[in-house]
Amino acid sequence: MNLGFIGTGVMGSSMVKNLMCAGHCLHIYNRTKSKTDELVAQGAIYYATPKEVAENAEVVFSMVGYPADVEEIYFGENGIFHAKNIAGKTVVDFTTSEPALAVKIFEQAKTLGANSLDAPVSGGDIGAKNATLTIMAGGEEEIFETIRPLFEIVGKTVEYQGKAGSGQHTKAANQIGVAGTMTSLVELLVYAEKAGLDLEKVIKTLSGGGAYTWSMNNYAPRILREDYSPGFFVKHFIKDLGIALNEAEKMEIDLPATTLAKQLYETLAEKGFENEGTQALIKLWWND
Amino acid sequence: MNLGFIGTGVMGSSMVKNLMCAGHCLHIYNRTKSKTDELVAQGAIYYATPKEVAENAEVVFSMVGYPADVEEIYFGENGIFHAKNIAGKTVVDFTTSEPALAVKIFEQAKTLGANSLDAPVSGGDIGAKNATLTIMAGGEEEIFETIRPLFEIVGKTVEYQGKAGSGQHTKAANQIGVAGTMTSLVELLVYAEKAGLDLEKVIKTLSGGGAYTWSMNNYAPRILREDYSPGFFVKHFIKDLGIALNEAEKMEIDLPATTLAKQLYETLAEKGFENEGTQALIKLWWND
Repeated sequence: MNLGFIGTGVMGSSMVKNLMCAGHCLHIYNRTKSKTDELVAQGAIYYATPKEVAENAEVVFSMVGYPADVEEIYFGENGIFHAKNIAGKTVVDFTTSEPALAVKIFEQAKTLGANSLDAPVSGGDIGAKNATLTIMAGGEEEIFETIRPLFEIVGKTVEYQGKAGSGQHTKAANQIGVAGTMTSLVELLVYAEKAGLDLEKVIKTLSGGGAYTWSMNNYAPRILREDYSPGFFVKHFIKDLGIALNEAEKMEIDLPATTLAKQLYETLAEKGFENEGTQALIKLWWND
Repeated sequence: MNLGFIGTGVMGSSMVKNLMCAGHCLHIYNRTKSKTDELVAQGAIYYATPKEVAENAEVVFSMVGYPADVEEIYFGENGIFHAKNIAGKTVVDFTTSEPALAVKIFEQAKTLGANSLDAPVSGGDIGAKNATLTIMAGGEEEIFETIRPLFEIVGKTVEYQGKAGSGQHTKAANQIGVAGTMTSLVELLVYAEKAGLDLEKVIKTLSGGGAYTWSMNNYAPRILREDYSPGFFVKHFIKDLGIALNEAEKMEIDLPATTLAKQLYETLAEKGFENEGTQALIKLWWND
């Protein structure tokens, strides 16, 4: 099948590789062309614009950084929606972006006779590499079902969540959940260290009980060996929490713990750690 | 073996039953005598004071409510430390209490020629019933090892954490961890509901990824069926977070997410929900 893929960063290029391994022909674009070289060497076809990618593919995936980037690759002068033969095609945005933008893309796709799904993922670089991502999809269910076999090439948990924007809302809920696990993990480590406890023993003991989190299992060991390299960037987490809190504000709900978590991460970024992994939050207490 | 047990509430009476099933002879005391009736019918021996329990047992366990109760049953007029033959015995406090009080008990025990361990537990009423508790112990390691076989009758994960008070500090770290999982679970459900998502589907999807917590697995289903009965009481969680934050203040560390969680739970208690389970936190948003 001829598939398009816009955005071949860390996540995107792993997904492209997995799709190629499954026998598909990949048509790709990335703002920084050099990041497509390896994929081209493996058989992907590079184009200078998202528009041309869309003209050569039946299904077009995107995985870029920020909502403004999504806006540009869909609606911009050389964007997907300016492809001559867009009618009948399906566009799928994997980017964690705004629910309202997902709805806008869905509506524009409809206007052009095309289909759209918002399908943000979780699972990070490792999940993308090992095809174990969780994919949360919004849009029309029958379109979701036609794309499901492709989702199952790149992800493990693939779930339809509801109408357009529901994938993005589910991802926002996910990030709200993650925020609390990071603040609590870091605060309990700060406490335990100051109390003179053996941190490895504490984590081993607490992992068996009510304080257990995926973050404890995945990030505590990295913190204990002072590995702050990004599984997930601080700057992207701030973006995601910003989306969630903007939506919450629109819906007139107050989320104090998530608000606090975003403030802590913003302080961390101001201190110069925005390109480290989210586990670097502990640096607000443990100064280098 | 002749064992003493002070405090036969929900947790304590399950632990007493498990110790009796393992063939031990239990000497018990509880402030409200009626709560000992069932255990006495099963073979436990009731005494009118903690002092008398201690006089008839080789090892004395305690599991009461608040630090003031611990103070009373150890140091009070009819307390454990007034037992005539206390020398050579070991006292073990399972109550979640203050590290400084655990040290005070340890020192008084030493003065009297006795031994002491602080051994708070996690795992709640179900863990006590099924003998799957996590036990976090502080004190002298050789004393811990002599008591370990008894701990393994009532718990599954039994870990020595360090000198006197370390069990309490580890439990405080555990409660700091739990606090963040409760606020994040509740906020993500509030968000998802307001966004019009299918909450069961959201929880199913997120459980496979980075937002996973023990609390999500255990409390989200209860919240979705509006079951706010206590696995763990709001009022006890406030006590535990108070202990953790007092200790943090003494150690001059600021734990903003835990501070916020305690404030939210205090607001919940003020609204009249202090005797409900910790999952009732969502009632701050979902009004009855």
